[in-house]
Amino acid sequence: MAMVGHSSDEEKDSKQAEIKSQASSQYSAQNEWQVHKVGVPPRQHLFKEFASTVKETFFADDPLRPFRDQPGSRKFVLGVQAIFPIFEWGRSYSLSKFKGDLIAGLTIASLCIPQDIGYAKLANLDPQYGLYSSFVPPLIYAFMGSSRDIAIGPVAVVSLLLGRLIQNEIDPTTNPHDYRRLAFTATFFAGVTQATLGFFRLGFLIDFLSHAAVVGFMAGAAITIALQQLKGFLGITKFTKKSDIVSVMRSVFQSAHHGWNWQTIVIGASFLGFLLVAKYIGKKNKKFFWVPAIAPLTSVILSTFFVYITHAEKEGVQIVNHIKKGINPPSVNEIYFTGDYLLKGVKIGIVAGMIALTEAIAIGRTFAAMKDYQLDGNKEMVAMGVMNIVGSMTSCYVATGSFSRSAVNYMAGCKTAVSNIVMSCVVFLTLEFITPLFKYTPNAILAAIIISAVIGLIDFEAAILIWKIDKFDFIACMGAFFGVIFVSVEIGLLIAVTISFAKILLQVTRPRTAILGKLPRTAVYRNILQYPEATKVPGILIVRVDSAIYFSNSNYIKERILRWLTDEEEQLKAAYMPRLQYLIVEMSPVTDIDTSGIHAFEELYRSLQKRDVQLVLANPGPVVIDKLHASNFANLIGEGKIFLTVSDAVSSCSPKLVEEA
Amino acid sequence: MAMVGHSSDEEKDSKQAEIKSQASSQYSAQNEWQVHKVGVPPRQHLFKEFASTVKETFFADDPLRPFRDQPGSRKFVLGVQAIFPIFEWGRSYSLSKFKGDLIAGLTIASLCIPQDIGYAKLANLDPQYGLYSSFVPPLIYAFMGSSRDIAIGPVAVVSLLLGRLIQNEIDPTTNPHDYRRLAFTATFFAGVTQATLGFFRLGFLIDFLSHAAVVGFMAGAAITIALQQLKGFLGITKFTKKSDIVSVMRSVFQSAHHGWNWQTIVIGASFLGFLLVAKYIGKKNKKFFWVPAIAPLTSVILSTFFVYITHAEKEGVQIVNHIKKGINPPSVNEIYFTGDYLLKGVKIGIVAGMIALTEAIAIGRTFAAMKDYQLDGNKEMVAMGVMNIVGSMTSCYVATGSFSRSAVNYMAGCKTAVSNIVMSCVVFLTLEFITPLFKYTPNAILAAIIISAVIGLIDFEAAILIWKIDKFDFIACMGAFFGVIFVSVEIGLLIAVTISFAKILLQVTRPRTAILGKLPRTAVYRNILQYPEATKVPGILIVRVDSAIYFSNSNYIKERILRWLTDEEEQLKAAYMPRLQYLIVEMSPVTDIDTSGIHAFEELYRSLQKRDVQLVLANPGPVVIDKLHASNFANLIGEGKIFLTVSDAVSSCSPKLVEEA
Repeated sequence: MAMVGHSSDEEKDSKQAEIKSQASSQYSAQNEWQVHKVGVPPRQHLFKEFASTVKETFFADDPLRPFRDQPGSRKFVLGVQAIFPIFEWGRSYSLSKFKGDLIAGLTIASLCIPQDIGYAKLANLDPQYGLYSSFVPPLIYAFMGSSRDIAIGPVAVVSLLLGRLIQNEIDPTTNPHDYRRLAFTATFFAGVTQATLGFFRLGFLIDFLSHAAVVGFMAGAAITIALQQLKGFLGITKFTKKSDIVSVMRSVFQSAHHGWNWQTIVIGASFLGFLLVAKYIGKKNKKFFWVPAIAPLTSVILSTFFVYITHAEKEGVQIVNHIKKGINPPSVNEIYFTGDYLLKGVKIGIVAGMIALTEAIAIGRTFAAMKDYQLDGNKEMVAMGVMNIVGSMTSCYVATGSFSRSAVNYMAGCKTAVSNIVMSCVVFLTLEFITPLFKYTPNAILAAIIISAVIGLIDFEAAILIWKIDKFDFIACMGAFFGVIFVSVEIGLLIAVTISFAKILLQVTRPRTAILGKLPRTAVYRNILQYPEATKVPGILIVRVDSAIYFSNSNYIKERILRWLTDEEEQLKAAYMPRLQYLIVEMSPVTDIDTSGIHAFEELYRSLQKRDVQLVLANPGPVVIDKLHASNFANLIGEGKIFLTVSDAVSSCSPKLVEEA
Repeated sequence: MAMVGHSSDEEKDSKQAEIKSQASSQYSAQNEWQVHKVGVPPRQHLFKEFASTVKETFFADDPLRPFRDQPGSRKFVLGVQAIFPIFEWGRSYSLSKFKGDLIAGLTIASLCIPQDIGYAKLANLDPQYGLYSSFVPPLIYAFMGSSRDIAIGPVAVVSLLLGRLIQNEIDPTTNPHDYRRLAFTATFFAGVTQATLGFFRLGFLIDFLSHAAVVGFMAGAAITIALQQLKGFLGITKFTKKSDIVSVMRSVFQSAHHGWNWQTIVIGASFLGFLLVAKYIGKKNKKFFWVPAIAPLTSVILSTFFVYITHAEKEGVQIVNHIKKGINPPSVNEIYFTGDYLLKGVKIGIVAGMIALTEAIAIGRTFAAMKDYQLDGNKEMVAMGVMNIVGSMTSCYVATGSFSRSAVNYMAGCKTAVSNIVMSCVVFLTLEFITPLFKYTPNAILAAIIISAVIGLIDFEAAILIWKIDKFDFIACMGAFFGVIFVSVEIGLLIAVTISFAKILLQVTRPRTAILGKLPRTAVYRNILQYPEATKVPGILIVRVDSAIYFSNSNYIKERILRWLTDEEEQLKAAYMPRLQYLIVEMSPVTDIDTSGIHAFEELYRSLQKRDVQLVLANPGPVVIDKLHASNFANLIGEGKIFLTVSDAVSSCSPKLVEEA
């Protein structure tokens, strides 16, 4: 049987029939066996082919599936529900769900209020703008978003990034009004960017920022943010405007003799200790998740009361002072729609919008996977975009999903986005009635709250896992990390994006190839490096190409295959073995080939002809076989040189050798 | 036998032994069969792994192979020969080879002299600069280059590109000296770019410009160049400075009434006819390759003589007038090493250098494949770079390999780069003695020569082939083409590069997946779209992922697999078939996986658990299995869920079902 050339092999459950039918003549020819040719799929119509490519690229998640076979009125209802998911889940909303949402909403509200005030400072804005951004955007999101767990509001990294980028254009201390206007402009265009990406279903673009780069960037940003807090924490008045670690540390130590305020340090350090202990308790026992959640507000209340009665602000302890009372004023007319700052606002908006999206989508996906519901990334982006566009018109700056608050939200048992509405209401009440009470809140407390919040962004475990799994990923991670802490947030981000792209490009330029050998007592051919027991077939070299063949790698693949051949020939020569007569290219993983790839194969074919080696192909896929025919390459090498499997090809090439083996 | 779960299958030449050993008990268990586990390759040392990656990326062609196991002195000789290949092939140089080179050299010299004068005009430089660029660079290349067929000198597309880019900065008519200085600066940095790419073995970067985009760009450039020649061809004095087809045609027709010169047109048209006929003769019969090669010089001589005796220049026929006599003056001190123009020169140099490289490497590879010798792309780049650096210091502008002259060189029977030296000598003699004779050469002849030369750059056949093979490639081709002719050379180039990159990114974000079925009477599982006779196994869904799983596609792959599952489940439900119990992911084409990919698989695993479907993997490769272990995912799903082949996995999943099938 081994010598049969044209029968398909790798047959297993057919053996039984075989054995019966050939009981008497085990070695007879088996012409009665069906020969499986390499299938050529029916030629698709051009438009159909194009439509399916577009569908797979932009509508990979098949968003119109529920609309299929529905009457018109139902389609309208479904359409409204698709844009405003609240009308879908709202219909089955119940009191028991509200209980969960209420508790979760109150918990995240107590966490967000002090964070908002601190984050607004990171973005060089007055504290009330942080609170504004926790009032309008969560409301919009609750109507349009489909995540049940995400908590919306300002976040540390985006606040820092926005602050840094706008500060490069306008000085926030000398020109706060223009600075604010540019912030709203950037927020507006961040929203436009997000909504556009979602609307045109380009959401996959954010996948180009690799997980590893994001881990490094986040950790770097966390350390940068924590370092910035040293100003408030140590009570330093003269502080650098740069964010790199060298400038900040120099600034800190230069002011060590006269600029540090010991009262501030005592307050800050003791409450930071309190917050970290609370965090630790929450981590140890999941039941006490509420301890770290309410610790910040408790610290604010205690420290404010303490400063109020001791009048520590007269000892140099810096306090928040005035927070403007009342809800968001409109800011449509503040946005730059013309002039020099328009372009700058667009640029900053695009960057901030993309980063905000990356964070929000990562959070959304994480929690969706935990509760096993599907999240439509593109729909989420539209929701985020609309939320920021409306936000920019109501004095908010860029809001997105917050890691820390979403986790608290989840643990507090939120059921739907109603928890965001609850939080929003609490923030509304705060803005309307309580802001004057924050007057005596020491800045050091806000610094302590931010430090304890951003520590969670440093994900050691993820970094260790990255190191274990992929060294190149780890370089990307560290590049982004050191770029952020030693140079600036922008450079860190640039490094992260560059390394991510470099990895993609490397991956497509230098695909893997492998020499296959036969596993003993099987007809399975596998990589001889992975299976040392696999043996090469004398006179035949079997190479597997592990990637689609495109212009970016066609030349490399051709030369790599020829190098395998040269290496093998040298070895055979040294060992006085018979020379190679066949080169079998296993094409299973080659999912596609383009004109350059066909050219490369033609060149390979000609080179092999000069060396008197036959080129044989095994198992080309549907697209590839189609193109081999279209380009006439299949005729060039001969139809008979294309086989369904490697072992088919091997047995056809040298039936004698296989028999001997 | 079909029900045996753990034996490896696809076994063929083992059957014989099987049949013997189990003659009496065909259906008994076969515990004695060797079980092939998925191989885990030995863990490589970190440094070794890194080194092999670097080697594969930058030294894929193994340039140090000949140095292996050689004594020191030999290594030195080999090193010198590696940098100056002339010392290698020069040792076996013979008179018979020289005969071939002499004829080829004289032929390409007769072709290059009129082309050089014309191309210099395309670059807005005086005619002698074209000749200069055909004197020094070919000499340098002959010593350092490794292609035997390439003919070095100025080429149409690079001349046009350089002319356009520098003209954007400095007006060549009002400020020719500064213009020239910037041209030398750009040439210097083009050389630096080329040498740097070669030295750091980054030559693969030019592979990122896809073949299709280059075809479109070249065709567009050819048409643009031909249109530019209408000025000389029609004898128009007032001509647009833009290069797009709309501006040029408007310019041509606006001057139709008073600006066209009929004498010029007569001369130009008749000689263009002559050139095209000569070209046709050369194409029809390869023996007459020399006819189109010497036709240009013949036309120049005839037309010059004609103008000289008829004094047609007084009738408005524009002539070349003065060409400076003597060889290249030094131009080191003309290069901008400081000032505003430095940066502009660098930018233009990088673009022009890359395009020049693309053309030269494409030519080099084509002819190397024809004569079956290997070309080291990186070494070629260093040679090109040095040649342009030296050129920029001796009043040359960017030189590279010319398509038309290299083809003539090849057909004239060149043996080595000595033909370039011969050409260089002829150009030297021309510069020293003959330039005054070109005084009466009409511009219309140069226009005709250029038009007949660039027509060859329009490759209809390639475009048709691209259309047949890959529609997306065709879009790239047309994008570049229309970008060049309707907007500008730069925009066309930008479109070409952008589409090339978009294609790479699309390829890595949206890899193919396929549902596999069992080919009847075999144990081979193949794409059911390609093999309609393949049948699904009840209760099991088999999905093949056709790409490495990286951050850019991990999420898509996860969601796509889940969508296949949902689709299948709906179909089964509608047909009242038993539900799916197993999902087998065929991992053969998955050559690598990163942290994001592992995350996606974890999420997939959790989703499947919720649906009560078991996840099974088939044939993960060496890198993947290594990472599945490193990340603990192999333990999560269970070692027993990873199989060597799909049919192993199928028989293990539901032995009963397979038996029934």
